[in-house]
Amino acid sequence: MSETHYYGAVINPQERNPREPISYKVYPACLIIVSPVGQIVDMIAQSDIVDFQEKERERCDEAVTVILSSDEFLMPGFIDTHTHAPQFPNLGIGQEYQLLDWLKDVTYPMEANFADPDFAERTYRSVVRRIIDFGTTTCCYYGTVHLDATKRLVDIVRDSGQRAFIGKCNMDREVPEDNLEPSANDSIQATEQLIDYIQNLTQASDSLLIHPIITPRFAISCTPELLRGLSDLAEAYNPTLHIQTHISENLDEVARMGELFPGNTSYADVYDSFGLLGRKTILAHAVHLGDDEIDIIAKKEAGISHCPTSNFNLTSGVAPVGKYLDAGIKIGLGTDVSGGFNPSILNAIRHASIASKVISLQHNPSDPLKPGYNNRKLSVATLLYLATLGGAQVCGLEDDIGSFALGKSFDALMVKVSSEAGNPGLYPGGKEDVDKYLRGMLERFLFCGDDRNISRVYVQGKLIGGNDCIE
Amino acid sequence: MSETHYYGAVINPQERNPREPISYKVYPACLIIVSPVGQIVDMIAQSDIVDFQEKERERCDEAVTVILSSDEFLMPGFIDTHTHAPQFPNLGIGQEYQLLDWLKDVTYPMEANFADPDFAERTYRSVVRRIIDFGTTTCCYYGTVHLDATKRLVDIVRDSGQRAFIGKCNMDREVPEDNLEPSANDSIQATEQLIDYIQNLTQASDSLLIHPIITPRFAISCTPELLRGLSDLAEAYNPTLHIQTHISENLDEVARMGELFPGNTSYADVYDSFGLLGRKTILAHAVHLGDDEIDIIAKKEAGISHCPTSNFNLTSGVAPVGKYLDAGIKIGLGTDVSGGFNPSILNAIRHASIASKVISLQHNPSDPLKPGYNNRKLSVATLLYLATLGGAQVCGLEDDIGSFALGKSFDALMVKVSSEAGNPGLYPGGKEDVDKYLRGMLERFLFCGDDRNISRVYVQGKLIGGNDCIE
Repeated sequence: MSETHYYGAVINPQERNPREPISYKVYPACLIIVSPVGQIVDMIAQSDIVDFQEKERERCDEAVTVILSSDEFLMPGFIDTHTHAPQFPNLGIGQEYQLLDWLKDVTYPMEANFADPDFAERTYRSVVRRIIDFGTTTCCYYGTVHLDATKRLVDIVRDSGQRAFIGKCNMDREVPEDNLEPSANDSIQATEQLIDYIQNLTQASDSLLIHPIITPRFAISCTPELLRGLSDLAEAYNPTLHIQTHISENLDEVARMGELFPGNTSYADVYDSFGLLGRKTILAHAVHLGDDEIDIIAKKEAGISHCPTSNFNLTSGVAPVGKYLDAGIKIGLGTDVSGGFNPSILNAIRHASIASKVISLQHNPSDPLKPGYNNRKLSVATLLYLATLGGAQVCGLEDDIGSFALGKSFDALMVKVSSEAGNPGLYPGGKEDVDKYLRGMLERFLFCGDDRNISRVYVQGKLIGGNDCIE
Repeated sequence: MSETHYYGAVINPQERNPREPISYKVYPACLIIVSPVGQIVDMIAQSDIVDFQEKERERCDEAVTVILSSDEFLMPGFIDTHTHAPQFPNLGIGQEYQLLDWLKDVTYPMEANFADPDFAERTYRSVVRRIIDFGTTTCCYYGTVHLDATKRLVDIVRDSGQRAFIGKCNMDREVPEDNLEPSANDSIQATEQLIDYIQNLTQASDSLLIHPIITPRFAISCTPELLRGLSDLAEAYNPTLHIQTHISENLDEVARMGELFPGNTSYADVYDSFGLLGRKTILAHAVHLGDDEIDIIAKKEAGISHCPTSNFNLTSGVAPVGKYLDAGIKIGLGTDVSGGFNPSILNAIRHASIASKVISLQHNPSDPLKPGYNNRKLSVATLLYLATLGGAQVCGLEDDIGSFALGKSFDALMVKVSSEAGNPGLYPGGKEDVDKYLRGMLERFLFCGDDRNISRVYVQGKLIGGNDCIE
């Protein structure tokens, strides 16, 4: 096993610095050296010409070399912080519904099919393949309530080489019988079995790509007993397990939550009171949070998954992402299939841009804008950040993925913006000034690109998909 | 030359009937017979089994037969009622701007390049090919101010077989010098030359696919003298020529219009006072119209091109399409490249859906909804209608295109929704109930489809593009 040298244009999101706007760097020519186990061991821009030549001399004998063409660039892989693998067969239908009726009429009937592990196997094979080819290198998956089906999802993701969080939904009330778990205790036991299954697998294969995640679907579908048990389960593991759930997506949902938890002051307070709100919690949607909830989420360092396609599609509302950024909350993007009708983070980026523009249009122009992100449209840099580093923070993996840096894993996309990629919606730009050309390439890719522009998808240094891999 | 028999599933938008919601019909098995000149001469659903068998017997000897597979359907081609051919090289960039600065910094510098007819030729070849492969069978094109470049666009569209309206922009003030026409008179003369060029071409080739259209870019860029001259020019032809322009896209634009036309009561009043508002006028955007403007547009029977992607992207606002439908105004969809970042009407459909959901979210729930479309989300049937029949009405071509009917031209898409089409974002549905399956196929295509799902594009019975035609 040898090192790999990647040589070409690189786009690299930068860590947030509270005193400056979110930004990214472009390197017209950069050498990234990746170790045999997929770690970035060196990264040199050609402008550091002496270092660059020396490294090339030192290492080129034993290394595999990948040289990008002038219409290609490398960027960190996309991180989808919220999607539902079993809902892919419903992609694109049900847009006339709002959340609670959509769950009843569209979603739960589909999820009931996953009682059959063979149906799950067939479906999930196709689902995971599609998600990877859209450039998602890390994915936070909801399964169904079914343990066996979710184990199949784990197997398929492991075989694919994708980095993932995989959880089995917990639901012991307010759902149709064929999705209902018999008791809180049964739900907790099945969850524990899935966690053990994933941990045994990853230990056996010496790979840490798949993480278990506790998945109480949402407060409405879980009895207090179940929420308490899942919180205890998360605590019992060392380090604490991740948790994913939904919060404040839709006003009718918020009202029903209030009826079921009359002793709590808010949706966030429900999760907090059961010990489910912490640094490893991923909260999807967060459309209608009160200021008290924003404060507690910031204080507990939970992360938010912004799902703009779904929030538009199910007429849930528009999440104030700028306000959350100003509050210092960790935030990434989620496709939320099939509430969202598109499995690509590229589409989530476009809809996050539109959502922020809708909010800026609603801002009363006579109120002066404060410094920060609230009520403003999101920049290309911020959109890129949400799709990569922001998502990594939401997953608690910011030291390992989300950007290119020494010691991080090489989770990357090779992007091709020329017409030969075959996407007629992306018109390549002129090559006048190299910095401007690269920034234009990125913007064109984010707003006009599709899977055809993603030539290669790497996770932990391993090529796992992309358009070049399809015959 | 022989007839062609198309046999398979058909989706057909229905004419608006004020007493019923907009709807469409699905025919699981239908025979459409198209004459050698591309006209629909018979259309029989298999449910009319006796007629069907008889027609088949009568005609099958001499006809070419096209049989669709079970995962394909035919639908009318898309009609793009507003786009700018010279702005394709800017697709996907400039999303941080609003209209007036975007024109100055992004658009006008690009359009200046079209002073070179060879640049225009290279660009327009690629543009027209892309638009056709996205399933646009009729397109309303803005060129630049340049006569020669716009003639090249005419030649290229004629060679492609697409149905189109093509206009040369008129601009004699408030634009940078390299886009400015020397005088109102020069602008009018050049426009007349383009009209004659198109009419000579279409007469010579015995084809009526390309229509000239007078294109005062917007009130701001035209002196009163120019607007009056263009109105006279439209009148001078028999029948009256079509006119396309922008209206009330952005609040700063509306304010500038007010400064330039202090004697007029509104944006619509400017066009009306110069005789430019009539049954053949296409008004793009219409985001911020007053009620008096809605009344006058309805009364004069002008049509509106709804451009939701652009309205979001340039933070222009959200056009109240439901209100216009209730007012009985003709309305279709426009991609508005490159204010819009996507040249596909499929994308315009999705953003029209989102725009209507944003409006429904802004509606105060304590005000009861009135019957009709205002403040409600648009249905799949309405979205389909806007993209086809609605667009045909805006173009004044509702007797010829926009749906399948006896005597209309066969402008059609063959759509394929199986995974073999190669679009990983479209997950095919189950085939339980045939009517439900077909309606699901349509919805999946509208929300998840892309150019790969458009196998064939027909205009006037002739195959002019689509994914099956690409090697």
